[in-house]
Amino acid sequence: MNIKIVLLLVLFTGTIFFAQVMHSPNGKATLVFKLTEKGEPTYQFSLGNKEVIKQSKLGLELKELEALKEGFTVERIDSSLTDETWNPVWGEVKSIRNNYKELAVILTQLSTKRQIIIRFRLYDEGLGFRYEFPIQDNLKYFTVAEEKTEFFLTGDHKTFWIPGDYDTNEYAYTTSKISAVDAYFGKTADEIGFKTLIAPNAVQTPLMMKTDDGLYINIHEAALVDYSAMNLVIDQKSFKLTSHLVPDKLGNKGYLQTPCKTPWRTIIAAEKAADILASKLILNLNEPCKLEETSWIKPTKYVGIWWEMHVGKSTWNYSDINNVKLNLTDWKNLNPNGKHGATTERTKQYIDFAAKHGLDGVLVEGWNIGWEDWWGYGKEEVFDFLTPYPDFNVEELQKYAEQKGVKIIMHHETSASVSNYERRMDEAYNFMKKHGYDAVKTGYVGRIIPRSEYHDSQWMVNHYVRVAEKTAKYHIMLDAHEPVRPTGLHRTYPNWLACEAARGNEFNAWSEGNKPEHETILPFTRLMGGPMDYTPGIFQIKLNYYKDGKKEQVHTTLAKQLALYVTLYSPLQMAADLPENYERFPDAFKFIEDVAVDWDDTKILEAEPGDYLTIARKEKNKDNWFIGAITDENSRATTIALDFLDADKNYIAIIYTDGDDAHYDSDPMSYQINSYVVTNKSDLKLKLACGGGAAISLRPATIEDIKNLKKL
Amino acid sequence: MNIKIVLLLVLFTGTIFFAQVMHSPNGKATLVFKLTEKGEPTYQFSLGNKEVIKQSKLGLELKELEALKEGFTVERIDSSLTDETWNPVWGEVKSIRNNYKELAVILTQLSTKRQIIIRFRLYDEGLGFRYEFPIQDNLKYFTVAEEKTEFFLTGDHKTFWIPGDYDTNEYAYTTSKISAVDAYFGKTADEIGFKTLIAPNAVQTPLMMKTDDGLYINIHEAALVDYSAMNLVIDQKSFKLTSHLVPDKLGNKGYLQTPCKTPWRTIIAAEKAADILASKLILNLNEPCKLEETSWIKPTKYVGIWWEMHVGKSTWNYSDINNVKLNLTDWKNLNPNGKHGATTERTKQYIDFAAKHGLDGVLVEGWNIGWEDWWGYGKEEVFDFLTPYPDFNVEELQKYAEQKGVKIIMHHETSASVSNYERRMDEAYNFMKKHGYDAVKTGYVGRIIPRSEYHDSQWMVNHYVRVAEKTAKYHIMLDAHEPVRPTGLHRTYPNWLACEAARGNEFNAWSEGNKPEHETILPFTRLMGGPMDYTPGIFQIKLNYYKDGKKEQVHTTLAKQLALYVTLYSPLQMAADLPENYERFPDAFKFIEDVAVDWDDTKILEAEPGDYLTIARKEKNKDNWFIGAITDENSRATTIALDFLDADKNYIAIIYTDGDDAHYDSDPMSYQINSYVVTNKSDLKLKLACGGGAAISLRPATIEDIKNLKKL
Repeated sequence: MNIKIVLLLVLFTGTIFFAQVMHSPNGKATLVFKLTEKGEPTYQFSLGNKEVIKQSKLGLELKELEALKEGFTVERIDSSLTDETWNPVWGEVKSIRNNYKELAVILTQLSTKRQIIIRFRLYDEGLGFRYEFPIQDNLKYFTVAEEKTEFFLTGDHKTFWIPGDYDTNEYAYTTSKISAVDAYFGKTADEIGFKTLIAPNAVQTPLMMKTDDGLYINIHEAALVDYSAMNLVIDQKSFKLTSHLVPDKLGNKGYLQTPCKTPWRTIIAAEKAADILASKLILNLNEPCKLEETSWIKPTKYVGIWWEMHVGKSTWNYSDINNVKLNLTDWKNLNPNGKHGATTERTKQYIDFAAKHGLDGVLVEGWNIGWEDWWGYGKEEVFDFLTPYPDFNVEELQKYAEQKGVKIIMHHETSASVSNYERRMDEAYNFMKKHGYDAVKTGYVGRIIPRSEYHDSQWMVNHYVRVAEKTAKYHIMLDAHEPVRPTGLHRTYPNWLACEAARGNEFNAWSEGNKPEHETILPFTRLMGGPMDYTPGIFQIKLNYYKDGKKEQVHTTLAKQLALYVTLYSPLQMAADLPENYERFPDAFKFIEDVAVDWDDTKILEAEPGDYLTIARKEKNKDNWFIGAITDENSRATTIALDFLDADKNYIAIIYTDGDDAHYDSDPMSYQINSYVVTNKSDLKLKLACGGGAAISLRPATIEDIKNLKKL
Repeated sequence: MNIKIVLLLVLFTGTIFFAQVMHSPNGKATLVFKLTEKGEPTYQFSLGNKEVIKQSKLGLELKELEALKEGFTVERIDSSLTDETWNPVWGEVKSIRNNYKELAVILTQLSTKRQIIIRFRLYDEGLGFRYEFPIQDNLKYFTVAEEKTEFFLTGDHKTFWIPGDYDTNEYAYTTSKISAVDAYFGKTADEIGFKTLIAPNAVQTPLMMKTDDGLYINIHEAALVDYSAMNLVIDQKSFKLTSHLVPDKLGNKGYLQTPCKTPWRTIIAAEKAADILASKLILNLNEPCKLEETSWIKPTKYVGIWWEMHVGKSTWNYSDINNVKLNLTDWKNLNPNGKHGATTERTKQYIDFAAKHGLDGVLVEGWNIGWEDWWGYGKEEVFDFLTPYPDFNVEELQKYAEQKGVKIIMHHETSASVSNYERRMDEAYNFMKKHGYDAVKTGYVGRIIPRSEYHDSQWMVNHYVRVAEKTAKYHIMLDAHEPVRPTGLHRTYPNWLACEAARGNEFNAWSEGNKPEHETILPFTRLMGGPMDYTPGIFQIKLNYYKDGKKEQVHTTLAKQLALYVTLYSPLQMAADLPENYERFPDAFKFIEDVAVDWDDTKILEAEPGDYLTIARKEKNKDNWFIGAITDENSRATTIALDFLDADKNYIAIIYTDGDDAHYDSDPMSYQINSYVVTNKSDLKLKLACGGGAAISLRPATIEDIKNLKKL
């Protein structure tokens, strides 16, 4: 154990207070824990000689009970060192090192005799800490009124933020100084159906920042279980952030029973932006895998009857009447609108396409009764998750998919009617297993029922985990849309492949969409907590293709859409466009066919949040590598050294880049494909258009390749 | 059709308004429907020449939409006559006649073009009416702010009432004039764990009244489905009652989608109190049985590991630690407190007793983990309904009960953590079927989770029905404790045998209990909506038997406890005392062994709410009759004519009456049993003690009986 204990400091006032200093394993990161005169626990965090977080208070306010904020003494300190390695079931890398110093401060509050533990884990790249409430006579059941964790920033940092909100995380990012954060500014974000903003000076996590002297800082939480999500309220004069938990509609922020603990609050800091992305701190703080058996979990590439509804080509609903009731409407005899997406016929087309191109799955949205009035009415009995529309033959498609070696992915849009979903889950999952489905995409669009809850309140946090647990029991993989943003729980529940929980590609279909910088920010924010089902791969960039005058579009080039399969990590990746569009560009689609979804290694080659990102990844159990390079609205020339390849080996690189005149707005679908033989000594010179990208697949070269292709 | 149409009346103002008069099938009851000048729908109800309800307004206030109260015109009137007979699966009688005149008033609101239907069904003994909202363009999804149904009483009637409350119906009844109702008076009703009083002048239904000129009036509702429960707010000057629905905690009183309808509001009136009890109006207004197959439903007599906990002899909880967590506590290694009621051993004793005495079932409470801190903490993950305590062997008892021909009755105390119950129901019911359980007693003690709800809000009303539906699917019979008070839904769901939903016998175990008049009021109030699992049959009246100084007791004589099996109708009846106490009085217990729980016929021989009640019932498919006579705190001498018996037939009457000096307080356990041969010409002279009763079983006499017994 390597602890420097700073003994009691006696100030000129004669006051004694407690201080403890701890360094990370390589000595670079430093934590200082102090009790103030008033017995308030505080912490301070530095990286090297740069202060990251100034001395900040810790504590909680309780309902009806005295606050757990001050009047503490240190009962005891426990410290330890951990250095272990673990292998995720799937991930960006094969093996993850978990190396930290731990400090557990056991505090007793003199007035109440209550005890809490603040546990710190100090990594070379950051700090995690949480509150624990041991079983004790003086504290059993208690209600949290507010958590008062401070993150006292050292300056008016550049910040990539979205508004604090109890219900949604689908805002577009704003980049501004901390002092200029205004969650209510100008725009009303009407494209987001359901929001509950908190305050002009409140933001969500993950929060990404860059200081004036070039330090990158990321604040989030890990292992959000049985607690509500943390937002941050900004004091825009002092640059102090304070935690703000999501309440229920009774105003209570958490119903707890000892023994219990809060999630980990995480602070990652790095001199290089790439090291933020490479950090595994959040995963490391999560509980190990709870599932006994995981061989049934398979990273997946899929297509789906989905985008065609978003662009207005077809509908989720079978008919156009706007008032239906599950048990009352004569579903068999409704008047079809002729535009229903999820038909037996259409599903077979997608299955054929998936089988032909070696994709694993076909998502089908709109297969089940209830879509006619599914949203906006706060309806409770909205879906039964069992009854298909008349034109969707479950049994026939079960056989067809099985013959073709493709899995149909189930869709459970809950419409935020969650108590309805929970009481139907066993039946719905039994239905899935009976009909050959082993993965489900859930959705939570709308106002939550139970009506006391928000999307991010404790009750809902527990719901999302219940779904992960129950799907695991049924050997079902899970992709959750519109839940609370993830916090690394996919380590504990590796069947939970991905979430949306941010502004995805779909916003481009029916709103101003996502600016070109969006995908250069997401990995530093949303994806710090877990994989995102961003649904990339749109080839038909401009959407007036579907209807004259339709002005929406995706705001990237086609080549950038390919790069996203590498830069936006997920073990579940959608080829989101229509098969017909892919068939127009089969050479470009080859990248999507080839790209892996599970990795042995990842290299963040270059990164600047909001500007650009280049990542290389090695396919699991293979010698193949894939590179994705993206830029924001600015064009970019960059050179990639391939020094991560094996030495003394030839590879064929297939390089998908923007066409010379490509531009995300004026000429987004212009691309070029070139193939070369390369080695680990090669450099790739890439030119990315405005809003552009490049995608490269690398595989060991054959003799034929070397004969036929140019060497770079 | 026999409708008197009163044509348009032209007032001196020149205003035309609509009026319609309708008479019941025998002409005695009269309904007058009128639209006022302002287009407000009103109704007035009379029985014979006595006005029951003065002209009273109808309508609803909606959230954000114009109220549906005035500005209506009559679009159309439909009228019809119904005269049919139907047979309940079980009941007080074999066959029920449903004979009424119906008036459906289709109203259009001129300003909004919205349409509602007010449907009246006029019986000889009363009136039912409800609001219907047809599917229409101008009204789809709407939220009820308040229902404004008036019941304008004709005077300051004597009223038997309990306070209006969103969460409980377990109050003791108060008898007072309408003008003197004060729901907050003096007492705090601390014996009721969880309450949400509404106002000093608010009462619940069923509301029982008696006018100064001797007319009996009962107000309640029928078929409470997908709507919240109706309380009544009293204008204590005018004696006008107005409906007050139960809100959720957001203040909304109902989330509706057309087409939809409210429950029926019911008014029963009679010159004789007995005719109130004999009325089948509420059942008749309910939907017919929805279950395809009902042969698995069996009226049941049961004992249970239950009272011994209430009197403190044993505990529900296995250990005495007061902080447990389902998935964390080491349940197998808890320290048992040595007083756990639900043990394998004890359950076998109850099974033996039930088998010996021909009883059908044994209820076991406290069999499952979680009771250590089950109440008062608002805990959500309180029970899993699957895991027994270490000393309760499910498999062993399954075999034992099966061998003995006795059913164990499952217990699902939800602790009002209802979303927890709903997501566990499939697993819990599968567990039941797997282990031979075919009946469940549910409980809802505590504060409801979802935290937006009260026990009687719409969401919870829907929950109780969901439970009835799902248990029916599993062929499970249902006994619900602490739900909203019933409204006749057991016609539609005959697996729903009974509810508690009022102050039961258990209150005598640990509070001031139930006054002797209590059981003479319940049939006129609570039981108008459905059977009550009152759990009668306590023989050991004084509870200091269990512990010196314990002052609680049952407030009736032993003989009255026997009579309750006839006067408090239920197809599910508990012999609530400990087997050991029954074994002390086997001769008295014989009545409980013999008494039926399902009937072909019922005669209300004499009745006065709050004072006395004598009922005779004929056992289903048998020639046996049973009589129960009870009184309040006053002694009573009464003569029962047995003229309902078959003519020219001898019966043996076993008459269980109070001992000569019996008194519910000073000598409650004194009883006598006499047997006679009787015929339909016999009169039975009965003397009931203060708080006393008499129970009589009658069966066709054998030659032996006639030889050996005295003729009356």
